[in-house]
Amino acid sequence: MTKEPTWSQRFESALHPAIARFNASIGFDIELIEYDITGSQAHGKMLAHTGIISPEEGSLLVSGLEQIRQEYRAGKFHPGIDAEDVHFAVEKRLTELVGDVGKKLHTARSRNDQVGTDTRLYLRDQIQHIRSSLRKFQSVLLDIADNHIETLIPGYTHLQRAQPVSLAHHLLAYYQMAQRDWERLGDVYRRVNISPLGCGALAGTTFPIDRHYTAELLQFDEVYANSLDGVSDRDFAIEFLCAASLIMVHLSRLSEEVILWSSEEFRFVTLKDSCATGSSIMPQKKNPDVPELVRGKTGRVFGHLQAMLVMMKGLPLAYNKDLQEDKEALFDSVKTVQACLEAMTILLREGLEFRTQRLREAVAEDFSNATDVADYLAARGVPFREAYNLVGKVVKTSIAAGKLLKDLSLSEWQELHPAFDADIYEAIAPRQVVAARNSYGGTGFEQVSKALKAARTQITAK
Amino acid sequence: MTKEPTWSQRFESALHPAIARFNASIGFDIELIEYDITGSQAHGKMLAHTGIISPEEGSLLVSGLEQIRQEYRAGKFHPGIDAEDVHFAVEKRLTELVGDVGKKLHTARSRNDQVGTDTRLYLRDQIQHIRSSLRKFQSVLLDIADNHIETLIPGYTHLQRAQPVSLAHHLLAYYQMAQRDWERLGDVYRRVNISPLGCGALAGTTFPIDRHYTAELLQFDEVYANSLDGVSDRDFAIEFLCAASLIMVHLSRLSEEVILWSSEEFRFVTLKDSCATGSSIMPQKKNPDVPELVRGKTGRVFGHLQAMLVMMKGLPLAYNKDLQEDKEALFDSVKTVQACLEAMTILLREGLEFRTQRLREAVAEDFSNATDVADYLAARGVPFREAYNLVGKVVKTSIAAGKLLKDLSLSEWQELHPAFDADIYEAIAPRQVVAARNSYGGTGFEQVSKALKAARTQITAK
Amino acid sequence: MTKEPTWSQRFESALHPAIARFNASIGFDIELIEYDITGSQAHGKMLAHTGIISPEEGSLLVSGLEQIRQEYRAGKFHPGIDAEDVHFAVEKRLTELVGDVGKKLHTARSRNDQVGTDTRLYLRDQIQHIRSSLRKFQSVLLDIADNHIETLIPGYTHLQRAQPVSLAHHLLAYYQMAQRDWERLGDVYRRVNISPLGCGALAGTTFPIDRHYTAELLQFDEVYANSLDGVSDRDFAIEFLCAASLIMVHLSRLSEEVILWSSEEFRFVTLKDSCATGSSIMPQKKNPDVPELVRGKTGRVFGHLQAMLVMMKGLPLAYNKDLQEDKEALFDSVKTVQACLEAMTILLREGLEFRTQRLREAVAEDFSNATDVADYLAARGVPFREAYNLVGKVVKTSIAAGKLLKDLSLSEWQELHPAFDADIYEAIAPRQVVAARNSYGGTGFEQVSKALKAARTQITAK
Amino acid sequence: MTKEPTWSQRFESALHPAIARFNASIGFDIELIEYDITGSQAHGKMLAHTGIISPEEGSLLVSGLEQIRQEYRAGKFHPGIDAEDVHFAVEKRLTELVGDVGKKLHTARSRNDQVGTDTRLYLRDQIQHIRSSLRKFQSVLLDIADNHIETLIPGYTHLQRAQPVSLAHHLLAYYQMAQRDWERLGDVYRRVNISPLGCGALAGTTFPIDRHYTAELLQFDEVYANSLDGVSDRDFAIEFLCAASLIMVHLSRLSEEVILWSSEEFRFVTLKDSCATGSSIMPQKKNPDVPELVRGKTGRVFGHLQAMLVMMKGLPLAYNKDLQEDKEALFDSVKTVQACLEAMTILLREGLEFRTQRLREAVAEDFSNATDVADYLAARGVPFREAYNLVGKVVKTSIAAGKLLKDLSLSEWQELHPAFDADIYEAIAPRQVVAARNSYGGTGFEQVSKALKAARTQITAK
Repeated sequence: MTKEPTWSQRFESALHPAIARFNASIGFDIELIEYDITGSQAHGKMLAHTGIISPEEGSLLVSGLEQIRQEYRAGKFHPGIDAEDVHFAVEKRLTELVGDVGKKLHTARSRNDQVGTDTRLYLRDQIQHIRSSLRKFQSVLLDIADNHIETLIPGYTHLQRAQPVSLAHHLLAYYQMAQRDWERLGDVYRRVNISPLGCGALAGTTFPIDRHYTAELLQFDEVYANSLDGVSDRDFAIEFLCAASLIMVHLSRLSEEVILWSSEEFRFVTLKDSCATGSSIMPQKKNPDVPELVRGKTGRVFGHLQAMLVMMKGLPLAYNKDLQEDKEALFDSVKTVQACLEAMTILLREGLEFRTQRLREAVAEDFSNATDVADYLAARGVPFREAYNLVGKVVKTSIAAGKLLKDLSLSEWQELHPAFDADIYEAIAPRQVVAARNSYGGTGFEQVSKALKAARTQITAK
Repeated sequence: MTKEPTWSQRFESALHPAIARFNASIGFDIELIEYDITGSQAHGKMLAHTGIISPEEGSLLVSGLEQIRQEYRAGKFHPGIDAEDVHFAVEKRLTELVGDVGKKLHTARSRNDQVGTDTRLYLRDQIQHIRSSLRKFQSVLLDIADNHIETLIPGYTHLQRAQPVSLAHHLLAYYQMAQRDWERLGDVYRRVNISPLGCGALAGTTFPIDRHYTAELLQFDEVYANSLDGVSDRDFAIEFLCAASLIMVHLSRLSEEVILWSSEEFRFVTLKDSCATGSSIMPQKKNPDVPELVRGKTGRVFGHLQAMLVMMKGLPLAYNKDLQEDKEALFDSVKTVQACLEAMTILLREGLEFRTQRLREAVAEDFSNATDVADYLAARGVPFREAYNLVGKVVKTSIAAGKLLKDLSLSEWQELHPAFDADIYEAIAPRQVVAARNSYGGTGFEQVSKALKAARTQITAK
Repeated sequence: MTKEPTWSQRFESALHPAIARFNASIGFDIELIEYDITGSQAHGKMLAHTGIISPEEGSLLVSGLEQIRQEYRAGKFHPGIDAEDVHFAVEKRLTELVGDVGKKLHTARSRNDQVGTDTRLYLRDQIQHIRSSLRKFQSVLLDIADNHIETLIPGYTHLQRAQPVSLAHHLLAYYQMAQRDWERLGDVYRRVNISPLGCGALAGTTFPIDRHYTAELLQFDEVYANSLDGVSDRDFAIEFLCAASLIMVHLSRLSEEVILWSSEEFRFVTLKDSCATGSSIMPQKKNPDVPELVRGKTGRVFGHLQAMLVMMKGLPLAYNKDLQEDKEALFDSVKTVQACLEAMTILLREGLEFRTQRLREAVAEDFSNATDVADYLAARGVPFREAYNLVGKVVKTSIAAGKLLKDLSLSEWQELHPAFDADIYEAIAPRQVVAARNSYGGTGFEQVSKALKAARTQITAK
Repeated sequence: MTKEPTWSQRFESALHPAIARFNASIGFDIELIEYDITGSQAHGKMLAHTGIISPEEGSLLVSGLEQIRQEYRAGKFHPGIDAEDVHFAVEKRLTELVGDVGKKLHTARSRNDQVGTDTRLYLRDQIQHIRSSLRKFQSVLLDIADNHIETLIPGYTHLQRAQPVSLAHHLLAYYQMAQRDWERLGDVYRRVNISPLGCGALAGTTFPIDRHYTAELLQFDEVYANSLDGVSDRDFAIEFLCAASLIMVHLSRLSEEVILWSSEEFRFVTLKDSCATGSSIMPQKKNPDVPELVRGKTGRVFGHLQAMLVMMKGLPLAYNKDLQEDKEALFDSVKTVQACLEAMTILLREGLEFRTQRLREAVAEDFSNATDVADYLAARGVPFREAYNLVGKVVKTSIAAGKLLKDLSLSEWQELHPAFDADIYEAIAPRQVVAARNSYGGTGFEQVSKALKAARTQITAK
């Protein structure tokens, strides 16, 4: 038998049990309980502060709410399905604890502004956690990069070897992506950290509340300027999901590379046992489950982003029950991004070893120095497009002859073009090929060292 | 301390605890346990049937597995995170129960074909449950339609009143959508009900297994013809999610209508207390939470569809760990669709009352009979486009004069066009407007009655 | 017969014509041509500035490129499919115009950094156009709001009448959404306006280029700090698509409301002929096509966002041809958002007339003043939840009696609770109900006037 | 100046030019013109057949429409923006050509059922084209497979070498995916090929039309049973987009593999010049643009699927203008899938050469025969899980010793387990490893030959 819900007086008959189950959000919004309590405490203080209730009443509300928090932390608060949602569950328990004054808590407030407040308080915290996880991830990238400034690795475009690069430079690309993620979340934070408390059901309230006071107590930077907007806005959640999706894009790219690198064909890294798993049937297998799962979870966050966009499409003002669907998508995205960042950080820190010998050989056995031959000629006055075409021919004939560029004799070079001299061999040696790309942001060792230093400063700045 | 996983012999060190948590699927794939047991029993029987193990060994495996099923049903089987997944959890428990013969269960099988089998067995059942829920939903629609063949309701295009229709006809449109859903799921079922068991890790097995035997035991209609495809195909899940998304499209449309109908402006239905909820602050509110939540959950299923498509994009053959992400999306979609169908069925059956008086008035007070005037003229030889233009003018001048079409005098009609006669009044009376649309599939009462009868036959046919 | 592409010297045979068609982007990237020319001019100037080419060569390149721009504007430049893409098309034409020096243009540059530069220049402009359209949209909202501060309109939650609000307040909610859109695009702009020019193919270049010089010429605020990231980053485009999706969310919500408002049931607005369309068959119809189309186009932008996220998923570093798919999604989203903003602005400005008489009646005929009764009691010391329950009962009995709250006699009020006095009638009069919600951000007229003034200041600030 | 639209008589003022542009679909629905003409001819014939118009009028309509078709094919029919859409454009031109009888064409019909008819006729054709492209794609796969039954290639799970397989077997996995696509499109076709013609605007018509007659003329298998459903159903388009998305999933997986195979690290295939492209700066590059683009276009089709689902969400009955947005998504998806199928077919047929020598070496140099050792023991009575653990250890010690399994001496084997005998060497030779997996659907050569034969039969069956 379903108990009477809080709003039952206008209703003659009880809610159908299956409908009660369908509507109830207590199964997942219990996750917000501490934020709900904190928000209610601020509301209670404000009610007293503005004289809407007495100071004693205010104190009772605040301490009663604190008691619920302690009960919850002690595992002693278990609201059931009949509580409908975390907000009613807390209000009911409060009235049990402090008596009739508990019935004053909801003065000048609605669940619509309350749930908006809770969700923002929650997301605000989560954003800071994720930003801090991004910093750890960046830090590990820098630690590895520090050790591999002069380790060369093939650089690819189209997954074809293009030009060799410093391994540190390669890792710094992911550092930069994470840096954008960190900054983007900072922008999102600004639009999350706005207080809807006091917007009421949709139109504000007849009571002389002080919204800036509650905002200050809850450390919100601003308050919503329009009550209809305040209770029905979910931009902040969608914007977060977009930022989360981009983090997953970046992690999925790194994951793809780790999977490639640990393949028998690439053999650029060795996966350590602590971060790999086996097969149920093939005894030799050591699988890169972590990056595969991260890659697989990418769609999950994209899906939540889409779900929330779809949810909002075409909703008239103001609050609609559809909005209840924001929570599970948000919670799961937060958990997924956090778990993936943590797992990738561990993988990088403890689970991968770059095979430097193999990498050294790799960059010496291909035509990824061909651009340098064209550049060599262009620097000696041959129009670049001509130089490029000439080198294209050399590559073609060399492949046919089973030779690499370094295998051509000086006379062969000079036959191709008189501008070639003995220093061509130096110019196309892998280490020099990398070193020479000393333009800003390029892979030249000098640049990479500077970039590393700048990155260290950046992540320790605040 | 993480216990040794099953595949640990090739590994020197234990899995990092955080990575173990990240990889483990036991938290959600426990949902498959009975399907896993059933699949393993079939595999064990086949091993004995083909002589790969002895008949006694086969019996031990089957009965040991049955014991695990009973333990699970009795709430006594609680595999932890160290079990990694439900498959290893069951195999371990089996070996505890039946000794070394348990170690033979995984002969000629891999988790890759095993999890594919489990998932298909699960989904096969769920599809049948959903189809049966669709039938209940259709049945309620027909019950209401039966009572409302002659109830008129404004028909809309562009949410502008277009032509009045029979309420039964309107409801039958949703019946038809559900019918397509039911049929579509039947097609999906055919592509779900194919056995991957025996595909092994990716390449088949060296043992003389009999895949058709296990398929028969498990009532699969076919077996996968290619092992690489068999272990890496998730088309069947995506196709299901597409069908599920379409069900949600249909339910979201009906939801939108119920929300409109129960608004103060439409007042076409009364929401009963058992299926509506109140506000935390506004005492007068009675909110249509059910259709709102259903509409809100639509994006959730679309999101899962996208997530799974994204998961599959660009995966090389054969199995990749990414595929583990198929389960939660599938489980949640199944639950969401089932819950929404159930809730909407209850809402229709017990929660809505059509306000026939209000509906009767509604269809009499607008210009939704204008097409009938044009048709009236066209039937008397005026080219349709001319008639249409003429009526357009009449509507314009009538609005200006604050009149409806029924308010025009016969002489006014005849001034407009000599073809008008006294029977114009009958032609534009709402009931006749509806009755006259007696073309196949139209809203004419005769057609609607036939359609209702055909529908009854259809859903009771099997 | 396909002509030789620029990169043909390493190739022995020509590209298959169907493959050439499949690969070519000239069909859509011609949209970037002026940005490509501008970017190339900056690159040419830099080559001369740094002495990589001579000043005369630099001048020739710049003026030759300018000539192509003029040819294009005059409709005289029509590169065909054999040009592969806009970059090669321009380079080829340049070499025709200025001779061999044209072959030097591509020195120290790759299409990878070039196309990134073009796309950012394009998007930078478009963002400013959209922000300016947002300002026009906001301005129209304010104009209408100015005239309707004291026009009351039912305020809804769950599409049930909740509390009456000022129409200006309602419109200001959309103003606030647009304001967030405007600010969000400002944040996106910062991450769009970063120069990848000089990142080369992936690793930087061996030439002594000056990336900050080209960035300055092109008015980029920053340069990419890592070349691999610079050529493969599409975050900026995805972030834009997210901001664009949110604009569409907001427009779709307003669209839904306009559609509702112009229905026969709501009759809150009259659609003017200049912004409505008819039916091909029903002469009376006047359809709100604009908001319907805007609502319908919402999914289109969501789809492009999803497409670009999917495109990026799991791509290894650095550039991959997949990235070519960014353009059509971006171009179409820009056009869609612009067109929708423009259409909605026209619709609001010229196409809608609020029916103030109808609105005045609407707010007087329901129970949307019930919260005020509860507040009335709460302000007189009755705990809110008690007051709320009491009013719930009143509403129930009033509905049964066919009365509204204003119809209750004073003695009936006092029978319910002794705290009621004659001023209850004033407290529940619609105008007072609105006026009383004078909390910050609320619908009280005083608040709304302040909000309007603040908004005017905000949009004229810069 | 915008000309008067067809529906202007009820309207006092002309449509705003910008709104006219925004609403018009003629820019893209011109693609449907021949289907529109065909549909209108059937409608005209039916009007005459049922006596609604005279036989002579019917003939005039049909021949006039045919004349428009010829004009269009001759490039002489260019409707402008003022035509609004292809339907009005054709009707107007018809009236110009045949006079007033043209104004009778729209009797008993609406654009709502007309556009639904056109779209289904279009999609019906496109589905058959795509199915025929799938057949060509399958046929090329079989041709290559025929030549490579005994070519071994590493089989992967988790992109780690798992067990060697027959290259033909690997290719047949893609054959099977395409086969499902082909069958699935067959199911979609059944739900596409249903006639909405005669559903009218929403409610059927007052004229004595014969919907089965037009359906027969247009070769529809069925007619919609409910008019409201008939004009507002877009399930068929969404279902097609889901099938199209799955085709793209499959092509993206093959694309990923071709990209991997053509990398320097895999070197499993040589890309031929006719199907590869170069770099603008790196003279040595030969890039796999085709599979990259196909992979990149995958998101595009997913995006269209999402767009159309979003479009439909929450639309009340019946037709809404939002539905106009179905066309571009559908047209672009059809073109994308067709182009990708064609490009991949050409790539497979002419653009790839498998490097059999490299493949032969690849399968001999790893531990992908480890399962066979475990199977060897299991077949000799050692419980599989024990055998598996034992082999895990062997692999670990072999890696440490720098040995492969084939390098172990017989005494080393026997030391591990007495069951080993000299035939272990044969059992772990790559060719035997493949041959031994002779279970149904496995990679054993016998199975693969059978599978190839069955596939040939399948695609030539109809």
